[in-house]
Amino acid sequence: MTSSIGDVKPQNMMFDEPLLLKSGETLTDYQLTYETYGSLNEDKSNAVLVCHALNASHHVAGTYDGDAKTLGWWDNLIGPGKPLDTDQFFVIGVNNIGGCHGSTGPSSINPATNEPWGSSFPMVTVEDWVEAQARLATRLKIEVFAAVMGGSLGGMQALQWTIDQPKRLKNAVVIAAAPRLSAQNIAFNEVARQAITLDQEFFGGDYYQQKALPRRGLKIARMIGHITYLSDDSMDLKFGRALREDALRFNFGTDFQIESYLRHQGDKFAETFDANTYLRITKALDYFDPAAKNAGNLSATLTQSESNYLIISFTSDWRFSPSRSREIVEALVANKLDVSYAEIDSPHGHDAFLMDEPVYHNLVRAYFTRIWRDSNNVC
Amino acid sequence: MTSSIGDVKPQNMMFDEPLLLKSGETLTDYQLTYETYGSLNEDKSNAVLVCHALNASHHVAGTYDGDAKTLGWWDNLIGPGKPLDTDQFFVIGVNNIGGCHGSTGPSSINPATNEPWGSSFPMVTVEDWVEAQARLATRLKIEVFAAVMGGSLGGMQALQWTIDQPKRLKNAVVIAAAPRLSAQNIAFNEVARQAITLDQEFFGGDYYQQKALPRRGLKIARMIGHITYLSDDSMDLKFGRALREDALRFNFGTDFQIESYLRHQGDKFAETFDANTYLRITKALDYFDPAAKNAGNLSATLTQSESNYLIISFTSDWRFSPSRSREIVEALVANKLDVSYAEIDSPHGHDAFLMDEPVYHNLVRAYFTRIWRDSNNVC
Repeated sequence: MTSSIGDVKPQNMMFDEPLLLKSGETLTDYQLTYETYGSLNEDKSNAVLVCHALNASHHVAGTYDGDAKTLGWWDNLIGPGKPLDTDQFFVIGVNNIGGCHGSTGPSSINPATNEPWGSSFPMVTVEDWVEAQARLATRLKIEVFAAVMGGSLGGMQALQWTIDQPKRLKNAVVIAAAPRLSAQNIAFNEVARQAITLDQEFFGGDYYQQKALPRRGLKIARMIGHITYLSDDSMDLKFGRALREDALRFNFGTDFQIESYLRHQGDKFAETFDANTYLRITKALDYFDPAAKNAGNLSATLTQSESNYLIISFTSDWRFSPSRSREIVEALVANKLDVSYAEIDSPHGHDAFLMDEPVYHNLVRAYFTRIWRDSNNVC
Repeated sequence: MTSSIGDVKPQNMMFDEPLLLKSGETLTDYQLTYETYGSLNEDKSNAVLVCHALNASHHVAGTYDGDAKTLGWWDNLIGPGKPLDTDQFFVIGVNNIGGCHGSTGPSSINPATNEPWGSSFPMVTVEDWVEAQARLATRLKIEVFAAVMGGSLGGMQALQWTIDQPKRLKNAVVIAAAPRLSAQNIAFNEVARQAITLDQEFFGGDYYQQKALPRRGLKIARMIGHITYLSDDSMDLKFGRALREDALRFNFGTDFQIESYLRHQGDKFAETFDANTYLRITKALDYFDPAAKNAGNLSATLTQSESNYLIISFTSDWRFSPSRSREIVEALVANKLDVSYAEIDSPHGHDAFLMDEPVYHNLVRAYFTRIWRDSNNVC
């Protein structure tokens, strides 16, 4: 696939204003790595922030050095003429703190010790990310976002924006998300963390200094995650019980295609992602629960919100099922907020939010067209 | 809980007739460990074989040495006056080959080397188990079972009995089973296996000689399994997002009750179960596919069956959902076999088959009452 945006370059911005994290720890200074697509208009009203989920980064769209393999993770949705049209909007992708793609994270050098942070890197939360993203926006002279958008954990950040920064965004696009993780969601994350820490190359999180990488543990973590991204039906359609060879092998190699596929996905991921980051992002997922401060009442948490909302879920998503999105919708409706909700019929499970499904993409396109028209007084 | 059966004792039987396994390998001799409850009647018509699933053993009912903690895994269903009434039936539980509770398995001594089998123990399949169980029945002078019964993988064995030994059982009770694993089922098993083999105490499967045990890998495997045994809803009812302490800890300990519960279950399991057995039983699950020899047509595989069937599924079971049981039912109906099917409304997921749910237990009771009456010509 080629990108309609073409080549892009990440940028870095340093911050020396201390960031007090929800955990109580403080990052005295930090770097954010980000990319932008399209142009900021004169009155700075066309900026859209795209928040990333567990496995992604600031590299939302475009390619690096013409290499099609480096295509951004949401390139099918974002670009010139795409549903989020960069001929109209100025789009920003930012790597979250704690990440492993440029922004300050566990693999960065801790200035206090001149060693990689490793196990000493603090826990980060969705609230911390929103605060850091808001500071980046301020530095880019963006006072109000036309929209903040994300899928899965990215959608949770968009929701948190409307709670923490209600005057700084006009629209929140929350796709395949949940207002908080269920016990089962937490359980899968915990098993993934156990697999990472079991790897003898983990060294308690301080593997950088050992020139080691807990690849096999991270591979297993990713395999577990991957199962929850696909639906049972889509796995059966794509792989079923197809064998790799003509007959069962009666050993512990890969008898079935699905085993081979998951191992390969796990290996690939473990080559490009940092285990300490994975540990922390899964904890940020577990901790996300904006309703907690109001004894579980999400509607009470959203009373200050002034945003309009587009909420989208996918029928076969069992990680964050449509009923989880409906919990968000109900809390918004209780606050008489402007909310559009769509449950998209899709066989692709949680991963559907990354796919080019026409009904879904047309919906996003229509929503952003409305934003653009409202903002430009076009009837 | 106390057992109505009271104390029981396992027995061992040695076999020196070679067992040709489906893998092509042969076990020249082997031991089966089994227990019996109730008394075999004069015409040997009241015997019921109970097959065990992944995590269990021959110890189906009763206690050892009066210790309530040693209660058999299906004691709530089987005993004097219980749904499978041992005042009427002679019940046999047998540890499968490859197991770790007495029958020949990876931790047994390989007579050819005088060392534990370990990694060299062959793969075993449901078909192999049925053959071994049939030989045990012959040695116990049981020509025809009144019923063969099991839940989950145990139910798959009951189904296989009706295919391989159609004249040696009158009834098959197949609970919470599936005619074959889905890609997702296989995927979860594969991740569990990867976790076991990642453990540095695994030593390629030859850990006995190293005085080592891959406890942490097996713990993770069990945690993954456990998630699939419970329903999302039952986990939320039992644990939700309840914390272990008053506040989030912002570290990698256990913030949530569900984490603590799963770790504890995993630790407990890893103390009593053998990792090599777990690896092989998950492969036996993956390999089970009686329809494969007829290009996926289960009905064609069942044409020789003469058994009556009771098939039971549970509404919230997402490991082997009701639709999987209905596949079996449809294949039986296509063969004009006598089949009773019930979909039990339960919130407890796959684990419901082990629970004392009145509607479920009453159904099993009614089925066995019918068997007993038919067999004794009682109207």
